[in-house]
Amino acid sequence: MEIPSVVIDRLPLYARALATLDSNGREVVSSQELGNHLNVTPAQIRKDLSYFGRFGKQGRGYNVRKLLDELRRILGLNRQWRIAIVGAGRLGKAIAGYEGFTPQGFRIAEAFDSDPAMIGSTINSLVIKNTEHLETVLSENPVDIGIVAVPADSAQKVIDSLVRCGVRAILNYAPIAAHVPPGVQIKRIDPVLALQGMTYYLKSEAASPRR
Amino acid sequence: MEIPSVVIDRLPLYARALATLDSNGREVVSSQELGNHLNVTPAQIRKDLSYFGRFGKQGRGYNVRKLLDELRRILGLNRQWRIAIVGAGRLGKAIAGYEGFTPQGFRIAEAFDSDPAMIGSTINSLVIKNTEHLETVLSENPVDIGIVAVPADSAQKVIDSLVRCGVRAILNYAPIAAHVPPGVQIKRIDPVLALQGMTYYLKSEAASPRR
Repeated sequence: MEIPSVVIDRLPLYARALATLDSNGREVVSSQELGNHLNVTPAQIRKDLSYFGRFGKQGRGYNVRKLLDELRRILGLNRQWRIAIVGAGRLGKAIAGYEGFTPQGFRIAEAFDSDPAMIGSTINSLVIKNTEHLETVLSENPVDIGIVAVPADSAQKVIDSLVRCGVRAILNYAPIAAHVPPGVQIKRIDPVLALQGMTYYLKSEAASPRR
Repeated sequence: MEIPSVVIDRLPLYARALATLDSNGREVVSSQELGNHLNVTPAQIRKDLSYFGRFGKQGRGYNVRKLLDELRRILGLNRQWRIAIVGAGRLGKAIAGYEGFTPQGFRIAEAFDSDPAMIGSTINSLVIKNTEHLETVLSENPVDIGIVAVPADSAQKVIDSLVRCGVRAILNYAPIAAHVPPGVQIKRIDPVLALQGMTYYLKSEAASPRR
């Protein structure tokens, strides 16, 4: 059965909330309470989880640890993922230095840049390699995920290179609508688009959006 | 009429693609071609735009400039928006230095941090002020939008302060499910959640997600 991508995208949120509850020693949580934490309706949570089987008993809530383990297994969060970051400028450095990746199993294993002044220097104790050698390097040391933090005009070329190296998940920080072949995941991180989606409501003094 | 937020979120994409076409001298574009650029179906584009009236004539395509102007007006992109950034660490600095904001009318007008070593220094020629004084500063010089780049454990407090200052749109980089009152927009930028939404497909070797 094919599960809608919007459902998949909510599961990491549930896992994060459950991990917090678990670390606070909570054993059971209701969909009501989980929903309050996350601004999601309890019905939505129950429906999303129903795609993956039956969790929890009617009126008894979810076993926190068990549901968390199950979500981690479903999402593939119980292993390490190797990442190559392309673009080691100000943005690339901020991403590579972000402390939230490692605890979640995301390890930045390679870093590339095309600026001769940058190549050979280190970013979080990782030597920056020449983007021209990306395909050679990654064919010897494959990665699972590519993070693209290069300027807009070279982003599609970098993405094509990553795809040729067998990378099947790309997080794109460049402000372009990139193209990837079927079977390759791509998500964009784009603060300008996010801001532009909010100014609509500021401008029109409209009510909150329907979620 | 209330327009679904997913529709509003796609409009900036359309505006960006139209701006590129316009700067290339294109006068007319079909929903088919626009869709190809953006990995969106032509039917989706036509349906999204139909919320806002009639654009283009059947079989004639859209007038690029006219549709672009209209989308800018709808989204409120034809004016300047003042932004306060809270958190001037590595991430805050990368955000403040991002060159993509200004051309789109987003001006970072204030920057705050709670680190005494940071307060008084500059970030893109903006003097960093003490987060403790945020409410005083913003009550005298209001901003439209807040960008939150502080650690998770202080993010909700900062968001509450911004809301008290009348900020009605917040872009949150902290990895928490923040709460805001009705009428306040919040969007999150969270690379870990984005990666976790993709590992599902890597793990299961499943086909592309339904979009």
